[in-house]
Amino acid sequence: MHFSIREATREDVPALLKLIKDLAVYERLLDQVVASEDLLARAGFGEERFFRALLAEDAEKQAIGFALYFFTFSTFLARPTLYLEDLFVLPELRGRGVGKALLRELAKIALAKGCGRMEWAVLNWNQPAIDFYRSLGALPQEEWTTFRLTGEALERLSKAD
Amino acid sequence: MHFSIREATREDVPALLKLIKDLAVYERLLDQVVASEDLLARAGFGEERFFRALLAEDAEKQAIGFALYFFTFSTFLARPTLYLEDLFVLPELRGRGVGKALLRELAKIALAKGCGRMEWAVLNWNQPAIDFYRSLGALPQEEWTTFRLTGEALERLSKAD
Repeated sequence: MHFSIREATREDVPALLKLIKDLAVYERLLDQVVASEDLLARAGFGEERFFRALLAEDAEKQAIGFALYFFTFSTFLARPTLYLEDLFVLPELRGRGVGKALLRELAKIALAKGCGRMEWAVLNWNQPAIDFYRSLGALPQEEWTTFRLTGEALERLSKAD
Repeated sequence: MHFSIREATREDVPALLKLIKDLAVYERLLDQVVASEDLLARAGFGEERFFRALLAEDAEKQAIGFALYFFTFSTFLARPTLYLEDLFVLPELRGRGVGKALLRELAKIALAKGCGRMEWAVLNWNQPAIDFYRSLGALPQEEWTTFRLTGEALERLSKAD
Protein backbone atom coordinates (compact mmCIF):
# COMPACT_ATOMS: atom_id res chain seq x y z
CA MET A 1 0.00 0.00 0.00
CA HIS A 2 1.28 3.45 -0.84
CA PHE A 3 1.01 6.04 1.90
CA SER A 4 2.79 9.22 2.91
CA ILE A 5 3.26 11.21 6.11
CA ARG A 6 3.28 14.96 6.57
CA GLU A 7 2.78 17.55 9.26
CA ALA A 8 -0.86 18.50 9.84
CA THR A 9 -1.96 22.08 9.19
CA ARG A 10 -5.01 24.08 10.18
CA GLU A 11 -6.78 22.84 7.03
CA ASP A 12 -6.52 19.27 8.36
CA VAL A 13 -8.61 19.97 11.47
CA PRO A 14 -11.79 18.28 10.13
CA ALA A 15 -9.82 15.14 9.14
CA LEU A 16 -8.05 15.15 12.51
CA LEU A 17 -11.30 15.42 14.45
CA LYS A 18 -12.78 12.52 12.50
CA LEU A 19 -9.75 10.34 13.32
CA ILE A 20 -9.84 11.41 16.98
CA LYS A 21 -13.45 10.20 17.18
CA ASP A 22 -12.56 6.93 15.44
CA LEU A 23 -9.81 6.47 18.04
CA ALA A 24 -12.23 7.17 20.89
CA VAL A 25 -14.58 4.49 19.59
CA TYR A 26 -11.68 2.01 19.57
CA GLU A 27 -10.68 3.04 23.13
CA ARG A 28 -14.34 2.71 24.24
CA LEU A 29 -14.20 6.34 25.37
CA LEU A 30 -16.35 8.15 22.79
CA ASP A 31 -18.56 9.59 25.54
CA GLN A 32 -15.54 11.56 26.79
CA VAL A 33 -14.94 13.39 23.50
CA VAL A 34 -16.06 17.01 23.58
CA ALA A 35 -13.51 18.21 21.02
CA SER A 36 -14.81 20.43 18.23
CA GLU A 37 -13.16 21.76 15.09
CA ASP A 38 -13.08 25.21 16.63
CA LEU A 39 -11.39 24.10 19.87
CA LEU A 40 -8.87 21.97 17.96
CA ALA A 41 -7.99 24.78 15.58
CA ARG A 42 -7.47 27.20 18.44
CA ALA A 43 -5.33 24.86 20.55
CA GLY A 44 -3.21 23.49 17.73
CA PHE A 45 -2.90 26.29 15.24
CA GLY A 46 -3.52 29.47 17.23
CA GLU A 47 -1.12 31.94 18.79
CA GLU A 48 0.07 29.42 21.38
CA ARG A 49 0.39 25.88 20.01
CA PHE A 50 -0.45 23.17 22.52
CA PHE A 51 0.03 20.22 20.15
CA ARG A 52 1.47 19.16 16.82
CA ALA A 53 0.28 16.33 14.61
CA LEU A 54 1.47 14.09 11.79
CA LEU A 55 -1.06 12.85 9.26
CA ALA A 56 -0.77 9.64 7.23
CA GLU A 57 -2.53 9.67 3.85
CA ASP A 58 -3.19 7.02 1.24
CA ALA A 59 -2.45 7.41 -2.46
CA GLU A 60 -5.70 9.37 -2.89
CA LYS A 61 -4.66 11.81 -0.11
CA GLN A 62 -7.32 10.45 2.22
CA ALA A 63 -6.32 10.60 5.91
CA ILE A 64 -5.81 7.06 7.23
CA GLY A 65 -3.98 7.70 10.50
CA PHE A 66 -2.43 10.32 12.73
CA ALA A 67 -0.02 10.95 15.57
CA LEU A 68 -0.69 13.83 17.94
CA TYR A 69 2.22 14.93 20.11
CA PHE A 70 3.78 17.72 22.12
CA PHE A 71 6.94 18.33 24.10
CA THR A 72 7.10 17.73 27.82
CA PHE A 73 10.24 18.01 29.93
CA SER A 74 12.36 15.71 32.06
CA THR A 75 13.73 17.57 35.06
CA PHE A 76 16.39 15.00 35.80
CA LEU A 77 17.71 15.01 32.21
CA ALA A 78 16.99 18.75 31.78
CA ARG A 79 15.94 17.88 28.24
CA PRO A 80 12.56 17.87 26.48
CA THR A 81 10.63 14.63 25.97
CA LEU A 82 8.52 14.00 22.90
CA TYR A 83 5.17 12.90 24.33
CA LEU A 84 2.90 10.97 21.99
CA GLU A 85 -0.68 11.64 23.07
CA ASP A 86 -2.42 9.66 20.32
CA LEU A 87 -1.38 7.21 17.65
CA PHE A 88 -4.12 5.81 15.45
CA VAL A 89 -4.44 4.00 12.13
CA LEU A 90 -7.80 3.03 10.65
CA PRO A 91 -8.46 -0.56 11.81
CA GLU A 92 -8.94 -1.87 8.26
CA LEU A 93 -5.50 -0.54 7.24
CA ARG A 94 -3.41 -1.90 10.09
CA GLY A 95 -0.47 -4.26 9.73
CA ARG A 96 0.94 -2.40 6.73
CA GLY A 97 3.55 -0.31 8.49
CA VAL A 98 1.62 2.95 8.83
CA GLY A 99 1.85 3.06 12.64
CA LYS A 100 5.53 2.20 12.59
CA ALA A 101 6.21 4.85 9.93
CA LEU A 102 4.47 7.46 12.11
CA LEU A 103 6.57 6.36 15.10
CA ARG A 104 9.76 6.51 13.04
CA GLU A 105 9.00 10.11 12.02
CA LEU A 106 8.34 11.00 15.65
CA ALA A 107 11.64 9.44 16.74
CA LYS A 108 13.42 11.56 14.12
CA ILE A 109 11.67 14.70 15.36
CA ALA A 110 12.53 13.82 18.98
CA LEU A 111 16.23 13.39 18.21
CA ALA A 112 16.35 16.55 16.09
CA LYS A 113 14.79 18.48 19.00
CA GLY A 114 17.37 17.22 21.51
CA CYS A 115 14.89 15.06 23.41
CA GLY A 116 16.21 12.39 25.74
CA ARG A 117 13.03 10.30 25.53
CA MET A 118 9.77 9.52 23.81
CA GLU A 119 6.85 8.63 26.08
CA TRP A 120 3.20 7.65 25.70
CA ALA A 121 0.45 6.04 27.77
CA VAL A 122 -1.24 2.75 26.91
CA LEU A 123 -4.53 1.36 28.16
CA ASN A 124 -3.66 -1.67 30.28
CA TRP A 125 -6.03 -3.98 28.34
CA ASN A 126 -4.55 -3.11 24.95
CA GLN A 127 -2.22 -6.11 24.71
CA PRO A 128 -1.51 -5.86 20.93
CA ALA A 129 -0.26 -2.29 21.46
CA ILE A 130 1.75 -3.28 24.55
CA ASP A 131 3.44 -6.14 22.64
CA PHE A 132 4.25 -3.81 19.75
CA TYR A 133 5.72 -1.11 22.00
CA ARG A 134 7.82 -3.64 23.91
CA SER A 135 9.15 -4.96 20.59
CA LEU A 136 10.47 -1.45 19.93
CA GLY A 137 12.35 -1.47 23.24
CA ALA A 138 9.92 0.79 25.13
CA LEU A 139 9.66 0.08 28.87
CA PRO A 140 6.57 0.50 31.09
CA GLN A 141 6.94 2.97 33.96
CA GLU A 142 5.05 0.78 36.38
CA GLU A 143 6.18 2.51 39.58
CA TRP A 144 4.30 5.71 38.71
CA THR A 145 0.56 6.49 38.69
CA THR A 146 -0.88 9.61 37.10
CA PHE A 147 -3.33 11.65 39.17
CA ARG A 148 -5.88 13.93 37.54
CA LEU A 149 -7.69 16.93 39.01
CA THR A 150 -10.59 18.32 37.03
CA GLY A 151 -13.90 20.17 37.17
CA GLU A 152 -15.09 21.33 40.56
CA ALA A 153 -12.08 19.93 42.43
CA LEU A 154 -9.79 22.06 40.26
CA GLU A 155 -11.91 25.15 40.89
CA ARG A 156 -11.92 24.42 44.63
CA LEU A 157 -8.12 24.14 44.75
CA SER A 158 -7.72 27.47 42.96
CA LYS A 159 -9.63 29.11 45.84
CA ALA A 160 -8.21 27.06 48.73
CA ASP A 161 -7.02 28.76 51.92
CA MET B 1 6.01 30.98 58.73
CA HIS B 2 6.09 33.73 56.15
CA PHE B 3 6.68 32.63 52.57
CA SER B 4 5.90 33.91 49.10
CA ILE B 5 5.54 32.43 45.65
CA ARG B 6 6.68 33.87 42.34
CA GLU B 7 7.50 32.76 38.82
CA ALA B 8 11.08 31.56 38.40
CA THR B 9 13.40 33.43 36.03
CA ARG B 10 16.70 32.58 34.41
CA GLU B 11 18.50 33.96 37.49
CA ASP B 12 16.85 31.26 39.60
CA VAL B 13 18.44 28.38 37.69
CA PRO B 14 21.08 27.63 40.38
CA ALA B 15 18.41 27.57 43.12
CA LEU B 16 16.16 25.40 40.94
CA LEU B 17 18.92 22.90 40.22
CA LYS B 18 19.69 22.59 43.93
CA LEU B 19 16.02 21.89 44.71
CA ILE B 20 15.79 19.38 41.83
CA LYS B 21 18.69 17.46 43.35
CA ASP B 22 17.12 17.60 46.82
CA LEU B 23 13.94 16.17 45.27
CA ALA B 24 15.88 13.40 43.54
CA VAL B 25 17.43 12.39 46.87
CA TYR B 26 13.94 12.18 48.37
CA GLU B 27 12.69 10.10 45.41
CA ARG B 28 15.77 7.83 45.70
CA LEU B 29 16.65 8.69 42.10
CA LEU B 30 19.71 10.95 42.45
CA ASP B 31 21.74 8.68 40.15
CA GLN B 32 19.35 9.61 37.31
CA VAL B 33 19.99 13.35 37.53
CA VAL B 34 22.21 14.65 34.73
CA ALA B 35 20.69 18.15 34.72
CA SER B 36 23.12 21.06 34.69
CA GLU B 37 22.61 24.79 35.05
CA ASP B 38 23.40 25.22 31.38
CA LEU B 39 20.87 22.61 30.20
CA LEU B 40 18.18 23.96 32.52
CA ALA B 41 18.72 27.55 31.40
CA ARG B 42 18.51 26.54 27.75
CA ALA B 43 15.37 24.40 28.10
CA GLY B 44 13.49 26.74 30.41
CA PHE B 45 14.55 30.22 29.44
CA GLY B 46 15.82 29.91 25.86
CA GLU B 47 14.14 30.63 22.55
CA GLU B 48 11.72 27.70 22.96
CA ARG B 49 10.51 27.23 26.54
CA PHE B 50 9.95 23.60 27.51
CA PHE B 51 8.95 24.27 31.12
CA ARG B 52 7.86 26.94 33.57
CA ALA B 53 8.44 27.02 37.32
CA LEU B 54 7.12 28.61 40.48
CA LEU B 55 9.52 29.24 43.34
CA ALA B 56 8.57 29.43 47.04
CA GLU B 57 10.81 31.63 49.18
CA ASP B 58 11.03 32.26 52.90
CA ALA B 59 11.15 35.72 54.49
CA GLU B 60 14.90 35.93 53.72
CA LYS B 61 14.23 35.17 50.02
CA GLN B 62 15.82 31.74 50.32
CA ALA B 63 14.26 29.16 47.97
CA ILE B 64 12.39 26.56 50.03
CA GLY B 65 10.31 24.79 47.37
CA PHE B 66 9.32 24.75 43.74
CA ALA B 67 6.78 23.53 41.23
CA LEU B 68 7.92 22.77 37.69
CA TYR B 69 5.20 22.49 35.07
CA PHE B 70 4.30 22.70 31.39
CA PHE B 71 1.21 22.41 29.25
CA THR B 72 0.20 19.14 27.64
CA PHE B 73 -3.01 18.60 25.69
CA SER B 74 -6.10 16.46 26.00
CA THR B 75 -7.31 15.37 22.57
CA PHE B 76 -10.76 14.42 23.77
CA LEU B 77 -11.31 17.77 25.52
CA ALA B 78 -9.34 19.68 22.84
CA ARG B 79 -8.01 21.80 25.70
CA PRO B 80 -4.58 22.11 27.28
CA THR B 81 -3.76 20.34 30.55
CA LEU B 82 -1.46 21.83 33.15
CA TYR B 83 1.03 19.06 33.85
CA LEU B 84 2.92 19.28 37.12
CA GLU B 85 6.26 17.56 36.62
CA ASP B 86 7.72 18.27 40.07
CA LEU B 87 6.44 19.60 43.36
CA PHE B 88 8.92 19.83 46.21
CA VAL B 89 9.24 21.55 49.58
CA LEU B 90 12.31 21.19 51.77
CA PRO B 91 11.54 18.31 54.17
CA GLU B 92 12.18 20.41 57.29
CA LEU B 93 9.61 23.00 56.17
CA ARG B 94 6.71 20.72 55.33
CA GLY B 95 3.27 20.84 56.90
CA ARG B 96 3.11 24.65 56.79
CA GLY B 97 1.05 25.06 53.64
CA VAL B 98 3.85 25.72 51.15
CA GLY B 99 2.99 22.75 48.93
CA LYS B 100 -0.70 23.58 48.99
CA ALA B 101 0.03 27.24 48.17
CA LEU B 102 2.09 26.14 45.16
CA LEU B 103 -0.76 23.87 44.01
CA ARG B 104 -3.29 26.67 44.46
CA GLU B 105 -1.22 28.99 42.23
CA LEU B 106 -0.97 26.23 39.63
CA ALA B 107 -4.74 25.68 39.70
CA LYS B 108 -5.22 29.41 39.10
CA ILE B 109 -2.79 29.34 36.18
CA ALA B 110 -4.53 26.25 34.74
CA LEU B 111 -7.95 27.89 34.84
CA ALA B 112 -6.64 31.17 33.42
CA LYS B 113 -5.10 29.23 30.52
CA GLY B 114 -8.35 27.42 29.71
CA CYS B 115 -7.10 24.02 30.86
CA GLY B 116 -9.62 21.27 31.51
CA ARG B 117 -7.32 19.41 33.88
CA MET B 118 -4.25 19.36 36.06
CA GLU B 119 -2.24 16.13 36.06
CA TRP B 120 0.89 14.76 37.70
CA ALA B 121 2.54 11.42 38.37
CA VAL B 122 3.18 9.98 41.83
CA LEU B 123 5.55 7.21 42.86
CA ASN B 124 3.39 4.31 44.00
CA TRP B 125 5.17 4.00 47.37
CA ASN B 126 4.69 7.66 48.29
CA GLN B 127 1.59 7.18 50.44
CA PRO B 128 1.70 10.60 52.20
CA ALA B 129 1.61 12.28 48.78
CA ILE B 130 -1.14 9.98 47.50
CA ASP B 131 -3.29 10.71 50.58
CA PHE B 132 -2.76 14.45 50.14
CA TYR B 133 -3.66 14.38 46.44
CA ARG B 134 -6.78 12.31 47.06
CA SER B 135 -7.85 14.82 49.73
CA LEU B 136 -7.79 17.49 46.99
CA GLY B 137 -10.14 15.39 44.84
CA ALA B 138 -7.50 14.13 42.39
CA LEU B 139 -8.16 10.67 40.95
CA PRO B 140 -5.56 8.03 39.97
CA GLN B 141 -5.61 7.02 36.29
CA GLU B 142 -4.99 3.39 37.06
CA GLU B 143 -6.04 1.97 33.69
CA TRP B 144 -3.10 3.63 31.91
CA THR B 145 0.62 2.77 31.95
CA THR B 146 3.27 5.09 30.56
CA PHE B 147 5.82 3.58 28.19
CA ARG B 148 9.23 5.18 27.69
CA LEU B 149 11.62 4.82 24.77
CA THR B 150 15.12 6.15 25.27
CA GLY B 151 18.78 5.84 24.27
CA GLU B 152 19.67 3.22 21.67
CA ALA B 153 16.06 2.03 21.23
CA LEU B 154 15.03 5.58 20.29
CA GLU B 155 17.91 5.85 17.79
CA ARG B 156 16.99 2.47 16.35
CA LEU B 157 13.35 3.47 15.82
CA SER B 158 14.41 6.65 14.00
CA LYS B 159 16.21 4.47 11.45
CA ALA B 160 13.68 1.61 11.26
CA ASP B 161 12.57 0.18 7.90
